[in-house]
Amino acid sequence: MIYELAKKLFPICRSITGNGVRESLEILKEVCPTLKTYEVKTGTQVFDWTVPKEWNIKDAWIKDSNGKKIIDFKENNLHVMGYSIPVHKKINLDELLTYVYTLPETPGLIPYITSYYSERFGFCMTENLKNSLQKGEYEIFIDSELKDGHLTYGEIIIPGKIEKEIFLSTYICHPSMGNNELSGPCVAIYLAKWLLDNASKNRYTYRIIFIPETIGSITYLSRNLDIMKKNIIAGFVLTCCGDEGQFSYLESPYANTLADKVTKNVLKYNAPNYKTYSFLKRGSDERQYCFPGIDLPVCSVMKTRYGDYPEYHTSGDDLNFISEKGLTDSYEMYKKIITALENNYKYKVNTLCEPQLGKRGLYYSICTKENMDSVENMMNFMTYTDGNNDMIDISNKINVNLEEIYEYADKFLKANLIDIID
Amino acid sequence: MIYELAKKLFPICRSITGNGVRESLEILKEVCPTLKTYEVKTGTQVFDWTVPKEWNIKDAWIKDSNGKKIIDFKENNLHVMGYSIPVHKKINLDELLTYVYTLPETPGLIPYITSYYSERFGFCMTENLKNSLQKGEYEIFIDSELKDGHLTYGEIIIPGKIEKEIFLSTYICHPSMGNNELSGPCVAIYLAKWLLDNASKNRYTYRIIFIPETIGSITYLSRNLDIMKKNIIAGFVLTCCGDEGQFSYLESPYANTLADKVTKNVLKYNAPNYKTYSFLKRGSDERQYCFPGIDLPVCSVMKTRYGDYPEYHTSGDDLNFISEKGLTDSYEMYKKIITALENNYKYKVNTLCEPQLGKRGLYYSICTKENMDSVENMMNFMTYTDGNNDMIDISNKINVNLEEIYEYADKFLKANLIDIID
Amino acid sequence: MIYELAKKLFPICRSITGNGVRESLEILKEVCPTLKTYEVKTGTQVFDWTVPKEWNIKDAWIKDSNGKKIIDFKENNLHVMGYSIPVHKKINLDELLTYVYTLPETPGLIPYITSYYSERFGFCMTENLKNSLQKGEYEIFIDSELKDGHLTYGEIIIPGKIEKEIFLSTYICHPSMGNNELSGPCVAIYLAKWLLDNASKNRYTYRIIFIPETIGSITYLSRNLDIMKKNIIAGFVLTCCGDEGQFSYLESPYANTLADKVTKNVLKYNAPNYKTYSFLKRGSDERQYCFPGIDLPVCSVMKTRYGDYPEYHTSGDDLNFISEKGLTDSYEMYKKIITALENNYKYKVNTLCEPQLGKRGLYYSICTKENMDSVENMMNFMTYTDGNNDMIDISNKINVNLEEIYEYADKFLKANLIDIID
Repeated sequence: MIYELAKKLFPICRSITGNGVRESLEILKEVCPTLKTYEVKTGTQVFDWTVPKEWNIKDAWIKDSNGKKIIDFKENNLHVMGYSIPVHKKINLDELLTYVYTLPETPGLIPYITSYYSERFGFCMTENLKNSLQKGEYEIFIDSELKDGHLTYGEIIIPGKIEKEIFLSTYICHPSMGNNELSGPCVAIYLAKWLLDNASKNRYTYRIIFIPETIGSITYLSRNLDIMKKNIIAGFVLTCCGDEGQFSYLESPYANTLADKVTKNVLKYNAPNYKTYSFLKRGSDERQYCFPGIDLPVCSVMKTRYGDYPEYHTSGDDLNFISEKGLTDSYEMYKKIITALENNYKYKVNTLCEPQLGKRGLYYSICTKENMDSVENMMNFMTYTDGNNDMIDISNKINVNLEEIYEYADKFLKANLIDIID
Repeated sequence: MIYELAKKLFPICRSITGNGVRESLEILKEVCPTLKTYEVKTGTQVFDWTVPKEWNIKDAWIKDSNGKKIIDFKENNLHVMGYSIPVHKKINLDELLTYVYTLPETPGLIPYITSYYSERFGFCMTENLKNSLQKGEYEIFIDSELKDGHLTYGEIIIPGKIEKEIFLSTYICHPSMGNNELSGPCVAIYLAKWLLDNASKNRYTYRIIFIPETIGSITYLSRNLDIMKKNIIAGFVLTCCGDEGQFSYLESPYANTLADKVTKNVLKYNAPNYKTYSFLKRGSDERQYCFPGIDLPVCSVMKTRYGDYPEYHTSGDDLNFISEKGLTDSYEMYKKIITALENNYKYKVNTLCEPQLGKRGLYYSICTKENMDSVENMMNFMTYTDGNNDMIDISNKINVNLEEIYEYADKFLKANLIDIID
Repeated sequence: MIYELAKKLFPICRSITGNGVRESLEILKEVCPTLKTYEVKTGTQVFDWTVPKEWNIKDAWIKDSNGKKIIDFKENNLHVMGYSIPVHKKINLDELLTYVYTLPETPGLIPYITSYYSERFGFCMTENLKNSLQKGEYEIFIDSELKDGHLTYGEIIIPGKIEKEIFLSTYICHPSMGNNELSGPCVAIYLAKWLLDNASKNRYTYRIIFIPETIGSITYLSRNLDIMKKNIIAGFVLTCCGDEGQFSYLESPYANTLADKVTKNVLKYNAPNYKTYSFLKRGSDERQYCFPGIDLPVCSVMKTRYGDYPEYHTSGDDLNFISEKGLTDSYEMYKKIITALENNYKYKVNTLCEPQLGKRGLYYSICTKENMDSVENMMNFMTYTDGNNDMIDISNKINVNLEEIYEYADKFLKANLIDIID
């Protein structure tokens, strides 16, 4: 299901602006129709940055002296440096090589290279191909357009019972790559669909955005900062969540937000071998969300972190690198995290001393050793339900997963033994 | 001495109410005559609970078809489920077995079973005996009485120089068992005697109570909560303190009270191999004392913790399981803890810079390497006597036991170099 | 250079008062002419202490029955117990031995012994010499003078841009010893010279004092406490910093001052194998500076700590025990510490979201994997420059040494991207 969506989006040549983004957002809208797209004009000042020119590309290739295409944009859009300006000329091999980018250490992979803020052009190819090139004349051709236009992004707002928000951010600016691009928007849009389907039950409002990385989050923040600072209680950057590696958690700058707290608890019980990375290892839009003065409570839950797999930012990060299982595992984990936040109330027992559970059918009538052991977790839950601890605190304190905690809360609520604390 | 008292109390059939409790309290009063007993009527509402009917039992047995008693309450009062209602009838083996409780894993021991809040009867025996029973008719007989009466508890208040209190709680509701019953009241009553004998010197007021577990502490709290919350600075539940195992310390819910602090220090220096248990492993009246809204600073110092020895709640927890040495070790440890609290002042040095110890005879007149080393601890004491640290803090900071700390405090007080900080 | 100064000062017989101190301060003044000396009268009350009589000594020896000098003050001034009163008499061996101090465990070394506050005399010699003494008559002679006079100390104040002070303290009260005496004042006076040479650039005011240990720091504090408490932000006791052992750091009482913080960071990056000692292991004037009520933020950076080498307080701590390399290493380390404090500003980035580094030439125009890694440290610097973290905090947080941190601060200041926070 999620993987099919990724397959559909894969061939499109996305960049930080352009029709590839628009086309991708239209496809995402098919899954969640309340997705709205926004267009921000080239030249708009967004904090310290300026929305760049819009880039579109139709075709590109290099032909050898025999007129044979040695690389072709239509076969793999990574062959052209992102934001390349148009060019069409004949040059010799030496000059050609000054425009060529490869990866000597992984000679079979095409690198992913961009030059957003400095106008130039370039070609990417495998080191193997480069080494096979003969002296002679080459014809290079890029049919691209770089001119005033718009930066495009998508936003889904799902109102909940309260204004406080949970925030999901993912990016839609990379061309044909699987884990470090499509896993994020594909998992995010299915989470949006799930949240929308349950919208009447949601406590929190959900803000889910599909933006170009960096310039997109800066643009989005410049237009929404006040409401985001006021309302967001926890946020997550969705990226690299499609492979089958272990889960990874990238901390917020001080690892002390509610987003960090819920993530650590949920991963502990559901992916105990998860890997923790400090904020020093960040690489996506948490760079903006957690910047001084922005200070949103945002962390990131991934599978294999960007930069920790050799296929990252290469043609090796393709549809084979991700899988339905990898995508679904991430989707389910984010559902658990969201469920944990939705249910993360503080309760307070309303009796002085332990309530008499027996008369409410919550205890055993005969006190044997065994019986006493089996109610231990429930009693532990009760004794820390003091109005100061939320459900995650109690889970951490009594070493019981949140699902079990919710059962106890449910039982005690039904027995009128605990009250919600605002 | 303490053991002799345990021996005297052992045969009495105690429960959460009844004459066994009254008889036991009378015997304890012989050691500490200021013990007062209180009677609380059946049906009295105590927080979420109701004081139950009073239970008394005279006799009980099972006879086989030959009229031979196969179990006899007079031989071991564990044979009858606590709070059993009266019964007298002849039944066949199959029916009998529905009333019989055993311990298959420790087939030579009789379990201790109760049913306080659900009216039924039952018999307890060894698994071995149960397995030897032949088909045939059995006569079962329980001569008990369950009717409106009272819940009985004992209290000793020993006023000190100030109203602030140290609180000791122990229970007197188990029939013939040694460690998980008699060790607590026996050690507690001798501590009471010691405190009473030194009453004129006590800084703190002492509140020492002898109650049935759970319903007793709830009843007691319901009648004394305000003064207890106002005055108690540290409290301890005395239980399982009669065997010769290592010391155990059961933390308060957040392990952050003065009771925890003093316990950790005293055990560190006097029983360095002591075992620490989190509040999740609680099992006695700290459940009530530390409940949200009650929040008393209470922890527990034991020898082998309830539940951590196979004889717990069985006939194996008898007079052989405890010893004079075990009881006295606990008695002495609690004396150390109490002494630590009594002496736990904050002082402040009243000189700027180090005082000249030499002119007060507290230093060596010749400075050699060796001399300088030997006054190090005393100098360390002085430099942390800044009015913020109490004696336990200083002991922890300078790694010197409290006895030595008191010596320094004494020397410095006599030399007028430190003042008590309120 | 520094070692030459130590050589020059070595032969002088210093004590807590007397002409040896004056002579030594005159020699130090040759390096830093702004050193001022102060004289405090015998009998002056300084907190709990009294300035003692002034002690001077011209000569001392013991002659055997043949008139042969067996020890001679002029050969080694450690032969006389510090503050010995004059004596001249003939005595037999048994009486002589009551005045003789040796070190049986290091039989070839002369101990360093004093008796400042109890009037007596004594001689120090090697255990070997003592064992070789024959029965017979001995003539003992000490030509000393103990009478009202002054306690002498030196002080250098180097005003900076602000009143806040960095404080260096060292002592000048030991006779001919190298590490535990001369290393301190020799390194301190060269630091003073360096600070004076750069005086126009100094942010902080520097207070550098040369005092007799204990009575000197008490005397100095009694005359300067208010201004010191008001202004000193970090201070250091310089001692035992002339050998070639590893660096040692002696914590302040709670290891939580700015002096501790800067020391831990600078040593971590420049002497990673440094040894940490708690304040319990203190032994010099931090005893006074950190005393309750004084509470100055003072720690100590040494090479091999006093007491941790067998030559300490013996004739073995001589000019061979220290070296130009050892002294210079300490000098350079203190320069690093001072530089770290001088540059320890708090900055705040003045953009919302990351600034666009590219347009300021601080970023790469082409985004490749490699480029992104290489700016990581700079980006990490930026993201923690939030106005709350000082440079040391950021160094600790992002695991980059301070020198590199300053470079980033410099770049960002020049680009007007960060502002100093007061």
